[in-house]
Amino acid sequence: MKKVDTLLIGGDVVTMNAKRDVIRQGAVAIEGATIAAVGAAERIQKLVQAEEIVDCTGKLVIPGLVNAHTHAAMTLLRGLADDLRLDVWLLGYMMPVEREFVGPDFCDVGTRLACAEMLLSGVTTYNDMYYYEGDVATATAEVGMRAVLGQTILKFPSPDADSYDASLARCREFISEWKGHPLITPAIAPHAPYTTTDEILQASVALALEFDVPLHIHLSETALEVSDAERAWGVPPIEYVHGQGLFDAKVIAAHCVHIKQREIPLLARNGAGVAHNPSSNLKLASGFAPVLQMREAGIPVGIGTDGPASNNDLDMFEEVRLASFLPKAVNADPTLLPAHDVFAMATIEGAKALHMAQDIGSLEVGKYADIVVLSQSGVHATPRFHLGSNNIYSHLVYAAKSSDVQDVWVHGRPLLRDRDLLTIDVDQVRQQANDIAAKINDFMMQREGSLLNKTVAIGGFAQQETYEIQVKVRVDDIDSVEALLQLGEFEIVKQSIRQQFDTYFVFDGGASDHYLRYREDNELAGPDQGAPGGIGLSVRPKYALTLMEGIVERIYQDSVILTRSRYQAQATYSLRFYREYFKPVREYEVVKWRNRYRVEFEDTEFAINFDRTTRPQGLGTFVEIKARTWSASDAEQKARLAAKVLRRLGLQSSQEKQGDYLELVSAGF
Amino acid sequence: MKKVDTLLIGGDVVTMNAKRDVIRQGAVAIEGATIAAVGAAERIQKLVQAEEIVDCTGKLVIPGLVNAHTHAAMTLLRGLADDLRLDVWLLGYMMPVEREFVGPDFCDVGTRLACAEMLLSGVTTYNDMYYYEGDVATATAEVGMRAVLGQTILKFPSPDADSYDASLARCREFISEWKGHPLITPAIAPHAPYTTTDEILQASVALALEFDVPLHIHLSETALEVSDAERAWGVPPIEYVHGQGLFDAKVIAAHCVHIKQREIPLLARNGAGVAHNPSSNLKLASGFAPVLQMREAGIPVGIGTDGPASNNDLDMFEEVRLASFLPKAVNADPTLLPAHDVFAMATIEGAKALHMAQDIGSLEVGKYADIVVLSQSGVHATPRFHLGSNNIYSHLVYAAKSSDVQDVWVHGRPLLRDRDLLTIDVDQVRQQANDIAAKINDFMMQREGSLLNKTVAIGGFAQQETYEIQVKVRVDDIDSVEALLQLGEFEIVKQSIRQQFDTYFVFDGGASDHYLRYREDNELAGPDQGAPGGIGLSVRPKYALTLMEGIVERIYQDSVILTRSRYQAQATYSLRFYREYFKPVREYEVVKWRNRYRVEFEDTEFAINFDRTTRPQGLGTFVEIKARTWSASDAEQKARLAAKVLRRLGLQSSQEKQGDYLELVSAGF
Repeated sequence: MKKVDTLLIGGDVVTMNAKRDVIRQGAVAIEGATIAAVGAAERIQKLVQAEEIVDCTGKLVIPGLVNAHTHAAMTLLRGLADDLRLDVWLLGYMMPVEREFVGPDFCDVGTRLACAEMLLSGVTTYNDMYYYEGDVATATAEVGMRAVLGQTILKFPSPDADSYDASLARCREFISEWKGHPLITPAIAPHAPYTTTDEILQASVALALEFDVPLHIHLSETALEVSDAERAWGVPPIEYVHGQGLFDAKVIAAHCVHIKQREIPLLARNGAGVAHNPSSNLKLASGFAPVLQMREAGIPVGIGTDGPASNNDLDMFEEVRLASFLPKAVNADPTLLPAHDVFAMATIEGAKALHMAQDIGSLEVGKYADIVVLSQSGVHATPRFHLGSNNIYSHLVYAAKSSDVQDVWVHGRPLLRDRDLLTIDVDQVRQQANDIAAKINDFMMQREGSLLNKTVAIGGFAQQETYEIQVKVRVDDIDSVEALLQLGEFEIVKQSIRQQFDTYFVFDGGASDHYLRYREDNELAGPDQGAPGGIGLSVRPKYALTLMEGIVERIYQDSVILTRSRYQAQATYSLRFYREYFKPVREYEVVKWRNRYRVEFEDTEFAINFDRTTRPQGLGTFVEIKARTWSASDAEQKARLAAKVLRRLGLQSSQEKQGDYLELVSAGF
Repeated sequence: MKKVDTLLIGGDVVTMNAKRDVIRQGAVAIEGATIAAVGAAERIQKLVQAEEIVDCTGKLVIPGLVNAHTHAAMTLLRGLADDLRLDVWLLGYMMPVEREFVGPDFCDVGTRLACAEMLLSGVTTYNDMYYYEGDVATATAEVGMRAVLGQTILKFPSPDADSYDASLARCREFISEWKGHPLITPAIAPHAPYTTTDEILQASVALALEFDVPLHIHLSETALEVSDAERAWGVPPIEYVHGQGLFDAKVIAAHCVHIKQREIPLLARNGAGVAHNPSSNLKLASGFAPVLQMREAGIPVGIGTDGPASNNDLDMFEEVRLASFLPKAVNADPTLLPAHDVFAMATIEGAKALHMAQDIGSLEVGKYADIVVLSQSGVHATPRFHLGSNNIYSHLVYAAKSSDVQDVWVHGRPLLRDRDLLTIDVDQVRQQANDIAAKINDFMMQREGSLLNKTVAIGGFAQQETYEIQVKVRVDDIDSVEALLQLGEFEIVKQSIRQQFDTYFVFDGGASDHYLRYREDNELAGPDQGAPGGIGLSVRPKYALTLMEGIVERIYQDSVILTRSRYQAQATYSLRFYREYFKPVREYEVVKWRNRYRVEFEDTEFAINFDRTTRPQGLGTFVEIKARTWSASDAEQKARLAAKVLRRLGLQSSQEKQGDYLELVSAGF
């Protein structure tokens, strides 16, 4: 009799070997880190003598599940912000919070929390892409899970590197340190084609080849990414990275939702694996990946949860079920991707996608003992039929739940027994996670509570002068007023004609408290064109976002002095982005033609605008005299001068002064 | 201080009232069957004195979930057969098993099992459609759950009624008995437009109105159903049933996957509710229901699990998550159907869809105390953010699991405490369920093991004569042989020209053991047309399925005597159906023109066929002489005569005899 450490006996063993043997009342023997025997209980019992015997009668014994793509430490951002478009979610929430909070501690705690959740749902191996992967590796190895850990490379500064050179150096160090570890496979993870450069991709491939480690990358996740790629490079992303030699490395390609038919052979020929993420693709509305076509071409397609911030959990049973549902519904054929195929994707095929099928993914002698025991006693697991192995796969895919997971071994070591985590102090991790989350919560509360903070969070804003002097009068015969500017005391420094589309976002508290203005500003090509109307706008429009906060109005002589915090940024995102990000209570739109003059008047610079509004209808034509300053005393001086300018333009000092356009339109002017 | 029975205190209370109040550290007081108070813990504590205080600190308190459509007792058929097309699944598996097994016991046990599963996933009210609803009602009321129970009406015999008149009578009796019960709302459930008749629909509406009970029906579940309806009635199903006055009743319409845009107002105007079943619609590949459009029109859309045989569980948390995912992915917009909306669908909107919103669906004073307490201590529930109520809805929809359900009250009565079912003996129900399943398993094993049983299960087969005499020779100049038939001793009883498309299904063991033949038989209009070629086939083709089993061949004189069990049926399903149902190992196709004669020869009837095969190419032309008999001695007599016929047709007795076409083509002829 051969001596072994552990014998799991009596359960129905789903081997996922090449013949897909399912052994009713089977047994699996563990010796050291590997599987020493698999077979009928009766037979194995006679062959081995075990230190520990685990009775699995009435249970299922399956290979540990492979989570083919995640960002484990993002457990700490779970449920922070949802139901948002990818850009708003990523640029408005995830990245600002990551910039502030992601460090070694965050990654340590977040990873342990993720490992706890994954073990409780039967995952024994996961494929990660995040920052501080050295800390992720330490946490994972201490827990005892198996993982491919990809250190992220981005072209812009990331939470763990000020530049991409620094992140490549960090990655090299990480790989050198962890290469050869029995549980951890270090990897390099250039984030995606659109967040890297040719140079980064090529350097990443070189590093992957130098150390013979996998290369983990997001490819063709969204339709936008693909159309941008085609515009930028003339080819879709996968063809593009192929041209960069990416597939010389052992690639694990996450998503491939919008992979083109002609790109499929590129992955197949080059032995790349794909990680399919059904929940994430649905929740972020990325689309439906062509899983059937990729599998038909011979590409190993594993299943991943993606990061828990976009899912929002790490439950492989949910993913497996969903992976089987989607091709059926999309192709209107319920026979597609049957249970046994999709369960293979979660195990042996996932292992292949991670380039690890020689070691894991099935219960076979010599492979690592990564094993999960599932209870079948839940009411949702009742009754059970035994017409063929399909009944077991049906159960695993369509009815089993992560809460059925009872015991987990990884590398021959028990990590979960009777749903008790043996290598994770869950109470401590939960406490640490909650402490970090509380800080994030405070940060976000402050940010969401303050329009300024929320604005600053997305970057690029600069504060402008505190005081703004403004005189604005409604004038019917605006042409004759404009003609006066050419006379006498005004030195015209600069002149331009613009069409301006302004959208005002108003929040609780109304316009008087604070507001945002999004302006599309179209300047006519030359300064000398005549009046507006029918003239093409030949200069690329400028987009600006202006935040006004803490507005205090004060009439001074004939001028209005506005004291406010005014922040301005180039609006690099779309109006739609800002709308979804800031969630205004109300919006107002003003469209106008503006003849803008910069003039010197008594050695002081003023802006004088002749505005002909076209929307809302009937708003009218206006003359505006404007100046800005940081100084309170200067503001009074300029206010006096502005009143003088007004009179020089033949306008009555007694004429009714108007406020901001927002004030006019929000009051129904 | 007001005295109450139970006070749930300290939890975050998600009320789902009109203002969608979420009360952090709230309280809910239960008095009798109803909610006596809801509010901040601090306030409620001062108002009421409770018999029992339940500490809900750190937990969530939500309205009981509403499962808007299911067939509860089908828990007992869970996982029996999956990954099949709807017709194969329903006609080949579900209905044959239901015919055999569904009775009062089955419905009692299946319902209790379902109630256990639903309570464990936070469901307090479910809407059912099945047979023996009296037994379903007894079981449900004993468990203490709330339900709308629809007694099924079909145009054909069902497990609980030999005819639809009988099922209407049974339904009337059921409604009379249960109307007014505090937990059970009896209902009438005409199964679907395509399984009922005008008369049934009208009688159902009349019954629903007479007793003021809901009418539960499947509408527009599949694209096929809609196209069939348009062909049969000129209008899609919902317009059709509207024409039958269906919406005079309080309708609960299940599925509505393929509802037409113009049908949406019919439901909206008439106050019908819809039950959306995301898992079932995906798993059976029915499609994506236009949930957004229906909700926009003001239709209350609840969420259902559908029956556990097509899902395969009763987990509302899965359904809710999926319901939120689908419109996002289908419309490529992740902001659609956000968490708070989809959680409303699972609670208050589901209650509206069931015409019960005055009583259930939200935590409000005066409504029934149908309450669920959820743990938030799972690692998947860590961490939690509190930026606004969206964080709670996000958690409930995207991360919470049925295993988080800790306590459930229905009608003020505790049914689940700390995941212990108080009113269901789970061990007993599981044992009973397994006993019934074992019998079904045996029945299916026998059926699947025998092609005959499997064939007979789908109905319509008749056994034919045991002995078949067949002489078949390959003849090159077939025209001149056929001309001989006009001479002398043959009396031609009947003649026809046919084009026959034969598909042979072969199974393990090969053709000699048993096989199935699917024949499309196209007869030419008149008997007197000339030779085939270019002639239109003006008679509707006949489809026949023939099963041959236990084939024994014996050469007798010049004839081959085949002894076999031969069963024949009109093939009412498609070739595709039979292919998926029988899963042949191999298929062969033979296409031929057949001039078929029935002749009298020496007072004995023979069939003589002149076959010109066109597929596979090069198979050739054949003369066949055939007869059948039940009698062994008669078989020998006919074999002798057949040899004589052969000689009269100028064919050599020494000529090589051929076997069945299947034998020829499978051997490569």
